[in-house]
Amino acid sequence: MKILSITLCLFICRTALAQDADSVMIAKIHEEILLHGACYEDLRHLCKDIGQRLAGSDNAAKAIEWGKATLSAIQPDSVYLMPVEVPHWTRGKNESGTYILHGADGQPQQLQVALTALGGSVGTQGVITAEIVEVKSFDELKALGEENVKGKIVFFNKAMDAALINTGAAYGGAYPIRGQGPSEAAKYGAVACLIRSLTLADDNYPHTGATRYEEGVHKIPAAALSAVASRQLSKDLKSNPGLKFSLQLSCEAFPRTMQANVIAELRGKDFPDEYITIGGHLDSWDIGEGAHDDGAGIVQSIEVLRALRALGYQPRHTIRIVLFINEEFGNDGGTTYAQRAREKDEIHVAALESDAGGFSPNGFDCDISDDQYEILSSWAPLFDDYNLFRFRRGGSGVDIRPLKGGRVALFGLLVDGQRYFDYHHSNNDVFENVNRRELELGAAAMASLVFMIDQTGIPMKK
Amino acid sequence: MKILSITLCLFICRTALAQDADSVMIAKIHEEILLHGACYEDLRHLCKDIGQRLAGSDNAAKAIEWGKATLSAIQPDSVYLMPVEVPHWTRGKNESGTYILHGADGQPQQLQVALTALGGSVGTQGVITAEIVEVKSFDELKALGEENVKGKIVFFNKAMDAALINTGAAYGGAYPIRGQGPSEAAKYGAVACLIRSLTLADDNYPHTGATRYEEGVHKIPAAALSAVASRQLSKDLKSNPGLKFSLQLSCEAFPRTMQANVIAELRGKDFPDEYITIGGHLDSWDIGEGAHDDGAGIVQSIEVLRALRALGYQPRHTIRIVLFINEEFGNDGGTTYAQRAREKDEIHVAALESDAGGFSPNGFDCDISDDQYEILSSWAPLFDDYNLFRFRRGGSGVDIRPLKGGRVALFGLLVDGQRYFDYHHSNNDVFENVNRRELELGAAAMASLVFMIDQTGIPMKK
Repeated sequence: MKILSITLCLFICRTALAQDADSVMIAKIHEEILLHGACYEDLRHLCKDIGQRLAGSDNAAKAIEWGKATLSAIQPDSVYLMPVEVPHWTRGKNESGTYILHGADGQPQQLQVALTALGGSVGTQGVITAEIVEVKSFDELKALGEENVKGKIVFFNKAMDAALINTGAAYGGAYPIRGQGPSEAAKYGAVACLIRSLTLADDNYPHTGATRYEEGVHKIPAAALSAVASRQLSKDLKSNPGLKFSLQLSCEAFPRTMQANVIAELRGKDFPDEYITIGGHLDSWDIGEGAHDDGAGIVQSIEVLRALRALGYQPRHTIRIVLFINEEFGNDGGTTYAQRAREKDEIHVAALESDAGGFSPNGFDCDISDDQYEILSSWAPLFDDYNLFRFRRGGSGVDIRPLKGGRVALFGLLVDGQRYFDYHHSNNDVFENVNRRELELGAAAMASLVFMIDQTGIPMKK
Repeated sequence: MKILSITLCLFICRTALAQDADSVMIAKIHEEILLHGACYEDLRHLCKDIGQRLAGSDNAAKAIEWGKATLSAIQPDSVYLMPVEVPHWTRGKNESGTYILHGADGQPQQLQVALTALGGSVGTQGVITAEIVEVKSFDELKALGEENVKGKIVFFNKAMDAALINTGAAYGGAYPIRGQGPSEAAKYGAVACLIRSLTLADDNYPHTGATRYEEGVHKIPAAALSAVASRQLSKDLKSNPGLKFSLQLSCEAFPRTMQANVIAELRGKDFPDEYITIGGHLDSWDIGEGAHDDGAGIVQSIEVLRALRALGYQPRHTIRIVLFINEEFGNDGGTTYAQRAREKDEIHVAALESDAGGFSPNGFDCDISDDQYEILSSWAPLFDDYNLFRFRRGGSGVDIRPLKGGRVALFGLLVDGQRYFDYHHSNNDVFENVNRRELELGAAAMASLVFMIDQTGIPMKK
């Protein structure tokens, strides 16, 4: 115990000389990426030439090929695919929501609503037409009971809480409605489920995302309405009580299929069997281009490898870039990766994920021990010049979370998340909404942290 | 001296109770602005219904009327105009840059270049056609000398340094070219001056901004080329040496005219004769909509007043909202304001400006004494939950800088500036590029700092 404490102390009290060398390398990393970065053009290609890439789709297969080729071009020590079983679901072409509104003059007017199926939803098998019952919570649904819900479409009209500074927390607060809403509504006999999109923007983009049917509960079709459409529908329900809503979704589920995580390795010179994993998720939803979610994390992870190679850096530990498949729809890539790591008794020193969008970075989420946090805190002055101030304890990233346990230090790139949910899971998540410098600064922050971890091994007491 | 130190100590060691009350008020301010903020709709009006508002223009006069009406609607204790003399310059309608390029096949092709006159430029009095000489610095210009420059158009093709993390520093590095370039070129007999726009974006927007002719030096017309046009022209000069560039600018200067700072006051209950000034600048350049620069600062300053009123806050010191006129073109509003304050022996406790764009705030620029900084640092835990981490010592804001001296503590809202120069002084600085939450968070940060200063007076040793 005493010896370990001294080791730890040595790590914390690194000499001024070492800190100077670290500082020089971090400056070089930033310069390399800001002046010669390839990640922005990589993102353009991923978004514009491949586009949306839901796991299980042909486009996801194309993205896997692209990822392998792009990593190979950097000439790391190895590039390979790790097979992963993923779901296969399609939205289909016919998505619509309409209702007849009677104005003050009594004239009927057909309104078309901006909506999109939730991921995993069953289809409507034709058109479902029914009355709407609007609620804001599961409690309100329960209070209405089967007598008021049966045969109707339940409309969960709950907005994310705009008063929360942390938009992720606001998302988390509204998230259960999207995940459990359809099954909760079905328990009371609802024939379909509509939810207000999980967004803080006041616009007409519907935002999709996975819903999870509860086992043993009848599966009903479920769609997200845009914020504007939700407000409009809520208003119209007050002036036209009993209005009938017609929903058509042509979603289909197919048997699970095989795709793959894409992995590249830069072999460590001192600890070749100890791994530092860096990644994001290659799949996206099947609307928009998955630019922020998570094209950004993918091209940033590739950029870390490119920059370290360009600088001629010889890592002490083996650095692994992992382009995970299917984060959005069951986290198959992350789960499989952790399972293989355990099967092979691989030592993971650390893992770092970028999956919060390609915005200005301001620090790192840290799922680490107290003594690891002490080491990290001693690095703060090195990160200060790059506006990396936040070392927030708690989570890391969905793809790397299954690695949790033992020594491994888990990190997530922390960014300015105020705009994230304006784009997230919608047709608005496109390349044009990513800023080159912000994307590059994120990649540089990641490479800098990886460098520091690689130099120190970021040990923990045992 | 001892007594003052104890006072200071009391300020720093505020009781836990006071800190709790402060924390509650700061939370209320954020909630009020994030849920009921008016600044985003104010900005829409200022940008879309009034639009660009160069000092001296009719639109600036309209903005002054709007500012007065908008502040009056909040019902502060007083609203008034402070007359300010401003320049009157117009860009005119005919702005063009063209050149004939001979391709590999020898075929001539006329190219139209995206450019715009620098603020204050003289016109071309018809079309100036001349050869181009390209340089990157004043040193290169000097090395060329009169024999290579006379009768030609000097093209300063110097980009902002993308490797700098602080985009303001990158701007500062390229700024002298815009300010002094035309006069420096004229000294060697140049007939006109072109500069690469001061931007970090790689697009086709030219960015204007003030140029300053040196007294006694012949004034030559000066324009900014877009980043893309600059790159293209530089390339074409290599394949077509001696190509002739035709420049037309129809700028005109008129006699100086009277406009005004718009001022609103909320009278202090304890120290009515001590002022806390909050502001931004109402004028903008005459292209784009001045959304980030500085519509954002204007509507945020108004929002501070609105939110404090909505919360029923009775300030201890008199709070003054100042919508300064003509920051862009000589800082007349700021200079006049400070002059009037000195004439009346007004005690300014603090001044806070927002003029770095309506982006996510992350702290404050602080031009304050060491002991004031100690007080400010003691507030850090209160700002932490709002991602306000940076208390950067040095500058504040252009409009409030003339107040500097004595006790006054000067602050600037610090924001994530990575995208600022993509928009700055260009047709791309429009309402659509401002995010509602980011704008509101900036206003809330300002109101929170004002509240803390008002509570403590943020004293300094004398």
